[in-house]
Amino acid sequence: MNQFGNRFRISIFGESHGSSIGFVLDGCPAGIPIHIDDFIEDINRRKPKKKGTTNRRELDFPKIISGVFKGFSTGSPICISFENSDIKSNDYDLVNAIPRPSHADFAANKKFHGFNDYRGGGHFSGRLTLCIVAAGVIAKKVLKDIKIHAELIEIAGQKQFDSIVEEAMKEQDSVGGIVECKVAGLPVGIGEPFFESMESKIAQLAFSIPGVKGIEFGAGFKGTLMKGSEFNDLIIDEKGTTSTNHSGGINAGMTNGNELIFRLAVRPTASISKIQKTFDMNSKSMTTLQIKGRHDTCIALRVPVIAVAIAAIAIADFIL
Amino acid sequence: MNQFGNRFRISIFGESHGSSIGFVLDGCPAGIPIHIDDFIEDINRRKPKKKGTTNRRELDFPKIISGVFKGFSTGSPICISFENSDIKSNDYDLVNAIPRPSHADFAANKKFHGFNDYRGGGHFSGRLTLCIVAAGVIAKKVLKDIKIHAELIEIAGQKQFDSIVEEAMKEQDSVGGIVECKVAGLPVGIGEPFFESMESKIAQLAFSIPGVKGIEFGAGFKGTLMKGSEFNDLIIDEKGTTSTNHSGGINAGMTNGNELIFRLAVRPTASISKIQKTFDMNSKSMTTLQIKGRHDTCIALRVPVIAVAIAAIAIADFIL
Amino acid sequence: MNQFGNRFRISIFGESHGSSIGFVLDGCPAGIPIHIDDFIEDINRRKPKKKGTTNRRELDFPKIISGVFKGFSTGSPICISFENSDIKSNDYDLVNAIPRPSHADFAANKKFHGFNDYRGGGHFSGRLTLCIVAAGVIAKKVLKDIKIHAELIEIAGQKQFDSIVEEAMKEQDSVGGIVECKVAGLPVGIGEPFFESMESKIAQLAFSIPGVKGIEFGAGFKGTLMKGSEFNDLIIDEKGTTSTNHSGGINAGMTNGNELIFRLAVRPTASISKIQKTFDMNSKSMTTLQIKGRHDTCIALRVPVIAVAIAAIAIADFIL
Amino acid sequence: MNQFGNRFRISIFGESHGSSIGFVLDGCPAGIPIHIDDFIEDINRRKPKKKGTTNRRELDFPKIISGVFKGFSTGSPICISFENSDIKSNDYDLVNAIPRPSHADFAANKKFHGFNDYRGGGHFSGRLTLCIVAAGVIAKKVLKDIKIHAELIEIAGQKQFDSIVEEAMKEQDSVGGIVECKVAGLPVGIGEPFFESMESKIAQLAFSIPGVKGIEFGAGFKGTLMKGSEFNDLIIDEKGTTSTNHSGGINAGMTNGNELIFRLAVRPTASISKIQKTFDMNSKSMTTLQIKGRHDTCIALRVPVIAVAIAAIAIADFIL
Repeated sequence: MNQFGNRFRISIFGESHGSSIGFVLDGCPAGIPIHIDDFIEDINRRKPKKKGTTNRRELDFPKIISGVFKGFSTGSPICISFENSDIKSNDYDLVNAIPRPSHADFAANKKFHGFNDYRGGGHFSGRLTLCIVAAGVIAKKVLKDIKIHAELIEIAGQKQFDSIVEEAMKEQDSVGGIVECKVAGLPVGIGEPFFESMESKIAQLAFSIPGVKGIEFGAGFKGTLMKGSEFNDLIIDEKGTTSTNHSGGINAGMTNGNELIFRLAVRPTASISKIQKTFDMNSKSMTTLQIKGRHDTCIALRVPVIAVAIAAIAIADFIL
Repeated sequence: MNQFGNRFRISIFGESHGSSIGFVLDGCPAGIPIHIDDFIEDINRRKPKKKGTTNRRELDFPKIISGVFKGFSTGSPICISFENSDIKSNDYDLVNAIPRPSHADFAANKKFHGFNDYRGGGHFSGRLTLCIVAAGVIAKKVLKDIKIHAELIEIAGQKQFDSIVEEAMKEQDSVGGIVECKVAGLPVGIGEPFFESMESKIAQLAFSIPGVKGIEFGAGFKGTLMKGSEFNDLIIDEKGTTSTNHSGGINAGMTNGNELIFRLAVRPTASISKIQKTFDMNSKSMTTLQIKGRHDTCIALRVPVIAVAIAAIAIADFIL
Repeated sequence: MNQFGNRFRISIFGESHGSSIGFVLDGCPAGIPIHIDDFIEDINRRKPKKKGTTNRRELDFPKIISGVFKGFSTGSPICISFENSDIKSNDYDLVNAIPRPSHADFAANKKFHGFNDYRGGGHFSGRLTLCIVAAGVIAKKVLKDIKIHAELIEIAGQKQFDSIVEEAMKEQDSVGGIVECKVAGLPVGIGEPFFESMESKIAQLAFSIPGVKGIEFGAGFKGTLMKGSEFNDLIIDEKGTTSTNHSGGINAGMTNGNELIFRLAVRPTASISKIQKTFDMNSKSMTTLQIKGRHDTCIALRVPVIAVAIAAIAIADFIL
Repeated sequence: MNQFGNRFRISIFGESHGSSIGFVLDGCPAGIPIHIDDFIEDINRRKPKKKGTTNRRELDFPKIISGVFKGFSTGSPICISFENSDIKSNDYDLVNAIPRPSHADFAANKKFHGFNDYRGGGHFSGRLTLCIVAAGVIAKKVLKDIKIHAELIEIAGQKQFDSIVEEAMKEQDSVGGIVECKVAGLPVGIGEPFFESMESKIAQLAFSIPGVKGIEFGAGFKGTLMKGSEFNDLIIDEKGTTSTNHSGGINAGMTNGNELIFRLAVRPTASISKIQKTFDMNSKSMTTLQIKGRHDTCIALRVPVIAVAIAAIAIADFIL
């Protein structure tokens, strides 16, 4: 199953090397203005254009299949698709036999009894985050006065990004990073107790981004070093404004009116050109592998706009 | 809404100071042996008995209302409830007017327009984790050969627990910690792509534990400091065993046959006896507050058994 | 799984001869006045008090476990339970071996591999409709200006009820009937296209009432005898009022502002005292069976208030 | 929302006069052979080719977008779309102002505040049943040994179909009918108690077929005329075979091993060429309307293959 949401529900489909990928968004209210142009900024932000991102070049042009009429959402399911064009599938013929380290290859092969589309990661490809970004654009339109911003705040623990990425590229290696996302303008009380807490829903979506291995809200892991008297955010006015924001804008699963803050740990890209060891399932022995496709040196560079999208989707699902 | 799961579905109900709390578990297969005694070990593990935990003393005796017949699950919904007995509600009369810092009080009051049961946190109370623990006991029975273990690995960044907690108690303050959970014996390929990834589901449940502000899998946040060649877990045999386990046993949202590992950041308990400042919504001015109830100095001490429960519940929901 | 609803979600639990039955209702807005007294009228209407209904006498007293505080819903899950007291379980010892005709016995035994609680139908008992009725009471409070009325319009094809039922009782037999439900005051446009149409949701709930074997909206089956020009309901004013109501107030799955009308076919009670043939699974041969419990001669007599409840629950789930 | 299913989940999208329609099917197991050719028979069976069906001629050629690789399902979401080509949208310009009787027009306009795509019924069009039929083809492949058959058993209460339809065509009118569906080879015990009973799920899907206004199982409405001793289906062997089948193969919501039987009441087509009265929302007065599009005289002629599809989908969702 590959679906998120109760009221603003997104289902994604497609494979990295299939004819196209896309999503169905159900629950978008009628009357939201939706044009192709609205998607360009965020789609471009996700695109590999900086140093350290893949050479695969897709147009990423959204084709609106349904749910939009005369420039506005109709209230019916919105389907948007994206063609895959720049495909080199011959790079992938061996992945079921010789699984790439830290990739979906081995697990997907077992899970689907060898029937999985293994080309470029198939349905597990990071390419499908394009759908999440596009759904996020619509979610942001629904949310209007809520402002969401995300940026990469660390690569490999540092603030100087270019040199680290360049060095990793030279070494045919990859690097990870930390993305921070902030949401301002949220009303108080959004989020449900326990299983559908605001943190629960954002985290569920965050771990749908390939490469994310951790999430923290507010002070997060560093907050475990504080005393309660230090961590507690003191309320200083009627609106619930707090003097500090170690809670990241969420108490007991609900927004408290302060800025919602979360950070994502993005692992170094699993696909590296460096020669790696792995196990050959046919010969039953260790072998070496050099991944030849076109890959991001630092996938974290492309994550901020996806972080914005998931925040928007999670919040839209609560608010509608 | 307060529910988790598609196939092994848990709904919890009740308030900290109501007559009882409980849960309905739907989807448990018929024929699982279930006795009252099975719950005792885990319920006791969650109980406040160590230094640094609350003085509230509840029997926490599970009453099986439905779904069990002649000692076995029937396949129908299982309802189990727990009476609340040791209640001192007069401690809570002012929380809507004078919200406690970093508590549900302010947000819940807004969300429910003042109709929330505010006594002891009401439905948002950590007491409801008792239901999660009990559901976890049943989940573990369903999973059989899968072994789950969790422990507190840090309090306030340190390994020496007793002295830190004692000191915090003396200061009428509180401390947080980090809980690590490991799951062995998982088959390969459990978990779905994207929105229902293994990480997504565990994280959704993890943030339903009051006080959890972060989760990471495998190398987690520290993994952002590694190069890809260092992070990648090399497959060394047919079963998918890896030489390292920076992925925490999960690739592309699916188990890879290695140990599943996650860590939870648990904030210092919000309720402290130390005098705190907060805003008085009636007088519209800052005031001071001393929380008099009975509280845990270190809630993290009680989290390991809950971490085990959520891991079991998440996995049961995938496997059934 | 035994649950209904996306926004007004009801989960029911319990067995006919267990300690108690009950339900969890999640999604009820905060601030709805809820008192024990509110349930009495509908619960009494469901009670077996007329000729032709069972002698089992339960207090059917609702115990509010959670979700109500100071007389109002809190916004948290509402749990209400009912004790079972007047139980004669020794009547049911043989049902797994000698299944009663047209009962759950045979299928439930297979489905649950013999672990089902077979006493009095177990979880499949009509007794659980008490939970539906109680949830319906809350649903009606949520709907306010919407008026729902249901009545039994036929027993065994006739309008004279008493004599037919008496005759059936004398014969140790049972009779069925047709219940009609009408809903006035609905806004236009409630209901979703296709799978979540108004008819779909009401029908889903209707077939959760034991004994219901058919449902029709508006002209229903008789409408198949009409020409389109006769069936079509002509719109005669701005509000969408129609000159006739063959559509039963629903077009394309959505309410059209006219009275919503549906009818339920309720089969004759399966439990009859008359001697019946059935198969003995132990001796592998035909045998005779006389059902000795206390049963309704005409279960349809008790269905109207349940029909009201399901209409209210379906509509509440759409409107909230 | 427009989605069905927990384990075999179908979401449909598109509008009658949009670029294409389609569906996403999530939960199809990996390894099911799926070829374009597999869909032809059922799609043709649904096509308007007999007397009394519309002149709109679509290729209805399924385009497999995702989830199929090398001729087999991959386990990832399957998306299939169908182009709309034979469109005459200028026929529909007035429907928001002058709603057609018994159509979605009035309600959809209110529901979506005028933003709905009103051309040809938009998302509410019977054209979308093409997606249901195609999903049903896949469902049947999943079910293998289960045989499903449906046929039209009555038009306007009669068995002689051609003359009735011809006469209605001459009169520029329409007729309805009754479709019967039978399922053989079901295992015992499929279906859940109450809200997810077999009848509940089939009925939910049945009312997603435009024009269906009633459903009955087994003896259905006629069963209300029987005594219990007559209605009860006597079990005559170990497999649960019954001497009669008034229950339609379902007891207490579960299959009992006998043939599952249901009948659908299909109203006469709402679109007729005959002049009709309706209300003009602009001039606020009654007016006349002649529907000029191309329509079915008897939509019931095309329903049998859809009935097969919904039975297959409902059962697949239970069995997987």
